[in-house]
Amino acid sequence: MTTFALPVLQDISNPAFTAKLKHKIDNKTKPLGSLGQLEGLALQLGQILGTESPQLAQPQMLVFAGDHGLTARGVSAFPSDVTWQMVENFIAGGACVSVLAKANNIALNVVDCGVNHEFLDATQTPRTGLLSTKIANGTADSSAAAAMTAAQCQQAIENGIAVVKNLPGNAILLGEMGIGNTTPSAALISLFTGRPATLVTGRGTGIDDPTLATKIGVIDRAVERARGIAGDVRANEPVDATTALAEVGGLEHASIAGFIIGGAAARVPVIIDGVIATSALLAAHAIAPGVLPYVIAGHRSVEPGASAALDHLGLVPLIDLDLRLGEGTGAVLAIPIVQAAARILGEMATFDEAGVTDKDPAS
Amino acid sequence: MTTFALPVLQDISNPAFTAKLKHKIDNKTKPLGSLGQLEGLALQLGQILGTESPQLAQPQMLVFAGDHGLTARGVSAFPSDVTWQMVENFIAGGACVSVLAKANNIALNVVDCGVNHEFLDATQTPRTGLLSTKIANGTADSSAAAAMTAAQCQQAIENGIAVVKNLPGNAILLGEMGIGNTTPSAALISLFTGRPATLVTGRGTGIDDPTLATKIGVIDRAVERARGIAGDVRANEPVDATTALAEVGGLEHASIAGFIIGGAAARVPVIIDGVIATSALLAAHAIAPGVLPYVIAGHRSVEPGASAALDHLGLVPLIDLDLRLGEGTGAVLAIPIVQAAARILGEMATFDEAGVTDKDPAS
Repeated sequence: MTTFALPVLQDISNPAFTAKLKHKIDNKTKPLGSLGQLEGLALQLGQILGTESPQLAQPQMLVFAGDHGLTARGVSAFPSDVTWQMVENFIAGGACVSVLAKANNIALNVVDCGVNHEFLDATQTPRTGLLSTKIANGTADSSAAAAMTAAQCQQAIENGIAVVKNLPGNAILLGEMGIGNTTPSAALISLFTGRPATLVTGRGTGIDDPTLATKIGVIDRAVERARGIAGDVRANEPVDATTALAEVGGLEHASIAGFIIGGAAARVPVIIDGVIATSALLAAHAIAPGVLPYVIAGHRSVEPGASAALDHLGLVPLIDLDLRLGEGTGAVLAIPIVQAAARILGEMATFDEAGVTDKDPAS
Repeated sequence: MTTFALPVLQDISNPAFTAKLKHKIDNKTKPLGSLGQLEGLALQLGQILGTESPQLAQPQMLVFAGDHGLTARGVSAFPSDVTWQMVENFIAGGACVSVLAKANNIALNVVDCGVNHEFLDATQTPRTGLLSTKIANGTADSSAAAAMTAAQCQQAIENGIAVVKNLPGNAILLGEMGIGNTTPSAALISLFTGRPATLVTGRGTGIDDPTLATKIGVIDRAVERARGIAGDVRANEPVDATTALAEVGGLEHASIAGFIIGGAAARVPVIIDGVIATSALLAAHAIAPGVLPYVIAGHRSVEPGASAALDHLGLVPLIDLDLRLGEGTGAVLAIPIVQAAARILGEMATFDEAGVTDKDPAS
């Protein structure tokens, strides 16, 4: 059970202000509704930031990294060492998310939630681009026992909440790195949605058929075990999110859930990535249902669990490019679209301002 | 029949260089194929620009504007005057495409191909942001007779080709403005794909059911008439593209077809927009099949004809946000994704460079 103090989330659905935003959008020089999904996004940004002219300032990308005991079961195509090697690649600027974040003027920091590696030297001097909130050198094998203790899980969530507090700007993006972490993601999605592992498990970094069968078996065992402890949604039992995270999640999943809650508490748009982020969002939503209006789904991952989680939450992502890289690449690719929606609301002329004849003046 | 001299288009499929590009993409620090559609896009940019590190320089957005005799038949929700009013809005910076082009550092110019309005004063002083290649004050009603003469159509195509020659940079985007122009677009798509008007006609700016029925009837008449002159693809007859454009197209369609051909001749990526651009691409492709490797489909418009044309050409668009605004908004929203693909090819580290363990080294 959740025993820590949750931050207060504001309700942004203020009907009077929402009507004002809708009126402004409907009077822009365009046919009514012709900007499709961008109109809902513009409205959401106006609601979150509480302004008719939202501007995204200093967007911050946080990449949460952790290792996974489940990898011993042979669920990934890559060895666990790739987690810390990729963290170094993020910091050095060579990874995909680093290249795209830089191009979009997005500050990028890696959060070491539980990587099985020591990133600091003996002097423990902090490193630029790396935040250490390490709780353990990875999780335990959740197909046999809890991935982490309840205390570790709560700490990881609280760390995620705390990360937001120190960030400048008014928009956050999130990504992740953790060899094996599509496995706990699928387990969380199975737990929260009640769908069987076969329907929510994908090939992650690109595993072959036998490895996929192994992965599904591992997830089945972990979820079966966790259902008895966290609750079985198929039997209409509520699923306790902190317990679910502790039983089958990863340290990065718990911290991402906290980060999403922290973002909503700070009243900023939270742009999430693919299957790992979406599985953590299921937990965040179960802990604090008020987070959802603050969340923007960046993209639809190829991983089947991502679509299952998005459907479950009623979220429609902005981008669908058959991506399955993770890191936060789907979130950072979506930021120009989010910025476009903000600019449409703030900068586009109305029919009156531009002297254009409206079909059916809404004013 | 086409009587003007077509520019030479280079074949960019060079197998040795393509293999080199593929090798570079496959050795980036990511699971093989995990960047989905972005990998094909990165390859295409490398092929078009002939480099392993493509960089888009000074992208140019051209918005082709024209009026349509068909509007007298009541096919649009807006009056024809909105064409010139929106052109003024583009130039003044208040339109959606203006706001998004500015935000993405894309130069925007409107090309007056045939707007029923005089944009210049008595001194005929050129205006910033407006290129005049006006051939007529709009087309004739193509449900009764040819929309334009063969000479006008060829001139409009040649004007489009010529526009590219004066542009700086190495990437072009295109959009359009013309009240009523989803009607000639649907007619062109019906002519070139053989699909009936009912399957390729949409609601444009937002017409009601009776207007949609009228629109489909107008398109049916225009296409039926044109099939006897330009060729009937349903009877396996070749469709002469210049004749098709002259019979049922718009002046902006003809100039866009030329612009696409000119872009391919200049060996630059051509990022197209929605249903009007895609219908013009069908004509450009029929005139010069070698254009297709240079084309990037920016987005999938809500208009059913857009998907019909994309399918016919085998193109997969980058963005699908239920947009139906036109102007070039779908192209300009796609440019950050195109730039991302270029940066992935040019800037992302390889496994060797980053010291990351590969699953299955391709080198």
